[in-house]
Order: sequence, then C-alpha cells, then structure tokens
Amino acid sequence: MEKPKIAVDAMGGDNAPFEIVKGAIEAVNEFGSSIVLVGIEKTINEELDKYTFDKSKVEIVNASEVISTDEVPTAAIRKKKDSSMVVGLNLVKNGKADAFVSAGSTGALLTGATVIIGRIKGIERPALGTCLPTVNGFTFLLDSGANVDCKPNYIVQFAKMASVYVENVMCVKNPKVAIANIGAEKEKGNALVKEAYEILEETENINFVGNIEARDIPFGSADIVVCDGFVGNVILKLSEGLSLALLGIIKEEITAGLYKVAAAALMKPFKNIKKRFDSEEVGGAPFLGLKSLVVKAHGSSKAKGIKNAIKQCEIFVENDIVLKIEEKL
Amino acid sequence: MEKPKIAVDAMGGDNAPFEIVKGAIEAVNEFGSSIVLVGIEKTINEELDKYTFDKSKVEIVNASEVISTDEVPTAAIRKKKDSSMVVGLNLVKNGKADAFVSAGSTGALLTGATVIIGRIKGIERPALGTCLPTVNGFTFLLDSGANVDCKPNYIVQFAKMASVYVENVMCVKNPKVAIANIGAEKEKGNALVKEAYEILEETENINFVGNIEARDIPFGSADIVVCDGFVGNVILKLSEGLSLALLGIIKEEITAGLYKVAAAALMKPFKNIKKRFDSEEVGGAPFLGLKSLVVKAHGSSKAKGIKNAIKQCEIFVENDIVLKIEEKL
Repeated sequence: MEKPKIAVDAMGGDNAPFEIVKGAIEAVNEFGSSIVLVGIEKTINEELDKYTFDKSKVEIVNASEVISTDEVPTAAIRKKKDSSMVVGLNLVKNGKADAFVSAGSTGALLTGATVIIGRIKGIERPALGTCLPTVNGFTFLLDSGANVDCKPNYIVQFAKMASVYVENVMCVKNPKVAIANIGAEKEKGNALVKEAYEILEETENINFVGNIEARDIPFGSADIVVCDGFVGNVILKLSEGLSLALLGIIKEEITAGLYKVAAAALMKPFKNIKKRFDSEEVGGAPFLGLKSLVVKAHGSSKAKGIKNAIKQCEIFVENDIVLKIEEKL
Repeated sequence: MEKPKIAVDAMGGDNAPFEIVKGAIEAVNEFGSSIVLVGIEKTINEELDKYTFDKSKVEIVNASEVISTDEVPTAAIRKKKDSSMVVGLNLVKNGKADAFVSAGSTGALLTGATVIIGRIKGIERPALGTCLPTVNGFTFLLDSGANVDCKPNYIVQFAKMASVYVENVMCVKNPKVAIANIGAEKEKGNALVKEAYEILEETENINFVGNIEARDIPFGSADIVVCDGFVGNVILKLSEGLSLALLGIIKEEITAGLYKVAAAALMKPFKNIKKRFDSEEVGGAPFLGLKSLVVKAHGSSKAKGIKNAIKQCEIFVENDIVLKIEEKL
C-alpha cells in the first residue's frame, strides 16, 4: 500500500528547522514515510543536505513566511498567506497531502485548521486531544484546550471522536469513556457536566463509564476523559507543572546533605520515570473533527516527537478515522 | 484575652471520635484553647477519660445523631436536627461558640453552615478555601469546591475574602491574587474568567496580578488563586492524585532491581517531602463568607489536623476576619 503523504511545518516550534527536518528524515528512513516539508526552501535544503535518504520520498513546498507564537492567531492566519502553516494546511485542503504536522503556534494552528480544512459535517466543534501519562499507560484527554466554552452536545461529540481515535490509533478495544467531574456520583457536577452526563448515558455506541474525579485520572481508570477545553487545559497544564515541581523537590531533598551517593544510584530509575512521562513517545496532539488530520506537536518537540507525530498521522489516514467518526455521529 | 470558644464535631470524619477528641485536648494543653465537644456525650466522656487537661476549658454538648458522608446533604441537615453537625452549627448561630470545626461530610457541612449560620450581608456565595502545597510554601485556593456554577462577581468576592484571610490568618502582607486561566495573556480564557478579570483589574483593595496558568500554580508565584468551584476542585483533587501517583511510581522504580540500598538511604528525604505536602500542618479548609467561621477538616484528619484547625479558628476570630471581610466588600 502506498504511504499517505504527510505535510510537515518545517518552520514551526522552538527547535525548527533542525529537529523538525531531522524527525521527518527519521520517519522516511524508519517507516518509509512520504513527506512534504513546508517552509523556506533554501533553509530546508540546507538541513536536508545533512542526511542520506530516499529523495523520492521527500518533497519541498516553499513558503516564505513564518507565524510566531506571539502573534494573534486569527490575524496571523488571515495575513500570512504564504506562511508555512497556511501553505501546509492548504496542501491538505487541496488534496496534495493527507495530514499536517506542526509544532508552531497552537492558537494559529487551531484557527487555521478550522478555517482552511473545515469541520466534518455534523461536528460542532473540533477538539484537541492529548495523551496524559498515568501509572499504567496513558489516558486520552479531549478537549484539552480548543473550546473553552462548551455546550453539553460538544462533550458528547468529543466522547464519540475520542472513542474512534483511541480504538483505532491507540488500539484500545472498546475504550472506557469518563467525564471529568468533582465527584463519582451521577448527581454531582456543574450544569454543563450534568447535562452532558444524561446524554452520554443514553449514547449507545460508546463505552461510557460515568464520572471520574480528577484525583483518579493519574491512576488510569479511564481510557478517555472528556471535558470542556478550559477544564481540560487545566488538567493538562497542572499535570505538567506538578510533575516538574515534584521531581524538583525530590531532587532537592535527595541531593541535600548526605544523600549524594544515593542520588548517584538513582540516575537510572529517574531516567525510567522521565521516559514513562515522555510526551514525545506518543507523537503530538491530534485536532479531531476536521475533514483531515492536523497534529499539534509540542512547541519544544525534538526529532523523535516529530517522527512519532508523522507515524500517528499515517495510522490515522490508513485507518480511515474521518470516515469512522462520520459513521459514529 | 479570653480565648474564643471553638465548637468541634466529635463524631465527624474517618477517625472520629478518637483522633478528634485527642486533637481538641492537644489544643487545650498546647494553646489553652476553649473547646465545646459536640456529639454523643457518653462516647465523648469515654475518650476524655484517657487524657489529663484543664476541665474548665472543655464543655460537652450532647447530640444523639451522626450525619454520614453518604447521605444527601440537604436531606441530612433537614432531618437530623440532633446530629453533631446541626447542633454544633446552632451553637455558633446562637452565640454559644465562635467557630465550628468538622471532619464530617463536606456537602452537609457546606449546606448546613449556609442555612444555619448564614452569609455575611453582601456576600453572594460563601466559598471553601484550601492551602495547596507549592515548591516554596502554600497557595490559597478559593473556591475549591463549594460553587460549581459561578458568576463573575462571585469570583471577585472570592478574591476579596481570600485577601483578608491570607493577610490576617496566614500573615502574608498584601497577598498576590491571580485567577486560574489557560494562558497568561489578558484576552485568554472562557467567558466567566474574562469577565471576572475585567472587574478584578478595576478592584482597588486587592493585589491582583492577572492570570495564572495551571502549570505555574505548583511553583507558588501567587499567594491566592481564585476560580469557580468546579475548576478549583479539579485543581485540588488532581494535585492530590498526581502527587500520590508520582510518589508511587518513584517508589516502584527505585525499589525495582538493584536500588534497595539507595531506597533505604532515602527514607529521610521522602519523609521530608511528605511533611512538605502534609495538609494537616495547616489545619482545615475555611468556609469563607459566613457570619462565623466554619472549618472543614479533612475526612482523614488525625489529632494534629484537628488541633491546627482549632488554632486556625482562634486566629480567625481574634483578628475579626468577618468584620474585615465586610469592610472589604
């Protein structure tokens, strides 16, 4: 089977273009991926000169501008028609690529993707999914920040889209969907969550398991956690911040005083822990509900993150996820 | 100065009555506190027999019933008129005690306190405050779960009440107030947060410092974080759950294989970390905005937590916090 063609924003992210191009070439060499690198052609060619790879697998599409993370998303998308992001999204829109990966501005990418690629018919709000690390693997969080004000039905659609994604891309059979809430009992929650719960309970083609309290999320009792994008972003960012803070405190306590020998012995277990919590292992955040897949790679992505985001796009396209979402609605 | 009289729910919490009565007696012996123990008189007397203390400092008020955590709050408060919780709250209402501490059902306590003691004139919604541990101390989170659906003005009142509390009870001069949000920029957030931000910015008698992203909360850059009770509860519970999960993972990695010697050497630093994250050190969660203070001690409180919650009540009463909140409105 021919590989889907993945457009990659060569200019987006803190480590662009070096790590982005490196990740794309690793995908070509490891998976035989078919890549379109979008950005300033001269710069991309300089990067490509560093590697050996099958040249038939890599195209370049020139884009003279770059959208930075401090620009207002809507204005940036409207004005910078020749930016790597807008050009890349248009490649997907026009069928010249099957999916798009960018480590650039999240806001601009969400706006641009919605405007240029467009929503699946029937989807009210596309949403950004993230894989949260848990003690026994990952939980897929949707929405993790695209929609800060939600209606109950949006949450129900998040549950359906996430079910398709997790079953087909992450290979979890009949994934358990829970709604983030402040108690386990049905009658708990704010108005939004209570209404969404009622509809989710009646929805037949998902495996809804009820409420999940935030304290239980890190223990991985649900495969999918749905919530509005404000709460989801708080969950995502607090998880990141608290993990960093705790590891910092532990390091501080261990290296204080007499524990230096112990600290040296702990290099390996700490490395293992970091690996278990490494977001680069799982690629990027898929923006679900569009006519084609757009993946937001972390702003600080290195080659491995980009490579895995490309793989993620391939699985998505090869499994006809858009069609499966349409069927689920 | 005569000590304020603190009513204590002797029957509420997982470790009642043993740890509750023990904590009350520790407060009497350490601080010279004046206590009213509320609950089944015979049971309380059996507990008191275990200790030596100044008997003039401890009263018992009999209450024959106990509200359990699995009862529906409103029904429990309405029906169980002779429960330790309802009797204790009535002591405060009738001026026979100055504040009330309970480790019993949170829902019943919030409902009962609002109905029986009543709100400060002008306060729209009383709110539950929690001290979240951070890398450099604590952040006071308000609301951490009492009001799941909020209007912008509630959040503004939370900011005012928290400012008074943190300045006077926790002794932080001119405490920095931030609103929990999904970005640092002013224009970020959902409708509620954006509107609240506008008003907070114009409020002169608080030290509003703008938005705080959830990832920055554990680093303690704000003394106070305000938010609606749904988001606050997610922040509180996720912090608890993630800390537990991470410490569990670290233990697992360290004790696996060859690290047992290192693990033994780490007993002390791990104990220090636990202490830094010990909620019992700071007493309980104050329910702010009522005509008198009600403190919700953690359900699993031991004597130390109860003792510190009593101390917290004394500081609150001695500093006329209710009056200061009225003046701040």
